[in-house]
Amino acid sequence: MMDSKDPVVQYYQEVSEQCIHYLSIDGVIFGFHQNQLKVLLLRWKGTNEWSLPGGFIRKAESVDKAAQRIMQERTGLQELYLRQFHVFGEALRYDQEATWQKINLPIKGVNWSERTISLGYYALVEHSKVVPTPDFLTEECRWWSLEEIPALLFDHNHIIEVALQSLRSQLGDLPISHLLPDIFTIPELQRLHETILGHPLDARNFYKKVMASNVLQRLSERRAGTPHKAPYLYRFRTGSTSAEPYSGIDYVD
Amino acid sequence: MMDSKDPVVQYYQEVSEQCIHYLSIDGVIFGFHQNQLKVLLLRWKGTNEWSLPGGFIRKAESVDKAAQRIMQERTGLQELYLRQFHVFGEALRYDQEATWQKINLPIKGVNWSERTISLGYYALVEHSKVVPTPDFLTEECRWWSLEEIPALLFDHNHIIEVALQSLRSQLGDLPISHLLPDIFTIPELQRLHETILGHPLDARNFYKKVMASNVLQRLSERRAGTPHKAPYLYRFRTGSTSAEPYSGIDYVD
Repeated sequence: MMDSKDPVVQYYQEVSEQCIHYLSIDGVIFGFHQNQLKVLLLRWKGTNEWSLPGGFIRKAESVDKAAQRIMQERTGLQELYLRQFHVFGEALRYDQEATWQKINLPIKGVNWSERTISLGYYALVEHSKVVPTPDFLTEECRWWSLEEIPALLFDHNHIIEVALQSLRSQLGDLPISHLLPDIFTIPELQRLHETILGHPLDARNFYKKVMASNVLQRLSERRAGTPHKAPYLYRFRTGSTSAEPYSGIDYVD
Repeated sequence: MMDSKDPVVQYYQEVSEQCIHYLSIDGVIFGFHQNQLKVLLLRWKGTNEWSLPGGFIRKAESVDKAAQRIMQERTGLQELYLRQFHVFGEALRYDQEATWQKINLPIKGVNWSERTISLGYYALVEHSKVVPTPDFLTEECRWWSLEEIPALLFDHNHIIEVALQSLRSQLGDLPISHLLPDIFTIPELQRLHETILGHPLDARNFYKKVMASNVLQRLSERRAGTPHKAPYLYRFRTGSTSAEPYSGIDYVD
């Protein structure tokens, strides 16, 4: 039943008036933490159902700005590195009846709820700087490592899979430095490549390739408190090269 | 003035009823002819103004199928090779007043004419198989080589530029064989790479790289009627490899 005082109904009425119909943005926000690639997910109010962050485009707003706005609200970060990666445009992308029931959404009967084309963006963020923040419809926002992601609402598992394929195929051109803290070790950088690729890499070859790229500066300190020989710490070189974010290595093992 | 018997007005009313608002598809159809990369353009009725082929998505139609439908109608080809390459989502993409005047379109006042987000697709087609066919709003459809493309309507010069950048950056992964006839020479294949890249390549290196890829079969005939030594003719190998369209060479000169 549509109750016009229900804040969720009001929310969708506002969206319906102010935003472009039939079109949404879904964001795959990637961070790197504890040697894992992670994705920021939202849990819907009163449920145990998770989804990607997303939203709608205002009528006079550019699509890129809408994506920035939506991802900024969830992360607390300004000027995120965002890239369009795919338009999800199937006429029926998921089982709508089952989905509305799971999250108890009163939007059946909204004329444009029958179909949504989604513009997929991924973001590369530094995990430690993010303040995960739920949106109006959700009550929890947190990081999930790729291996632990549950069955998500809508077709969001598929969207994450396509985002990952994009990362992999663009690895040689991916500004991977957005995912890293200021200071890191070579094994950490290797692990970032491995978690994107989904398979291990040869450490000696990796080290050679990174050193050949000549963008890293070795610090005098080493990482303390590791069980093995303490590895050196690195940062990206300052100067002219630092303007360009460091791209990943196009690694064919 | 809106005249409801004007077929153009009727056309837009039908689009308005049947299609998704605020969203269009623009197609950059690439062909290779006379050693040039060419793009299929449309001239609008009663004007000397040109644009890309494009159209709208029906309410229950997948975005990919809409793109296929639109490109099929302009080329006469079934099952074209199509790839999404970019969403053009600026709030104001071009000077609307000036554009409506140029093509005398009576759609001012249509509520969603103020804004169109365009999904960019490129197609790779074999030039000789295409039957260029104008659409309802246009009276001529023909090929233009990249160097000769005039100032186009909307932001279509920009869209072509972004499509070309995509081709260049995806060259190593681009199923370039869709652009070629069954039989061709190595200099023709080289010229195809050069016209995509926009600069000449070293013939000896090119030959070496192509031969190393081991996907071509040399025929016993040579190209007749050339001023220089007649070059050999090639085709893609039959058998298991022919299922995969031949990708371009990732050419770093």
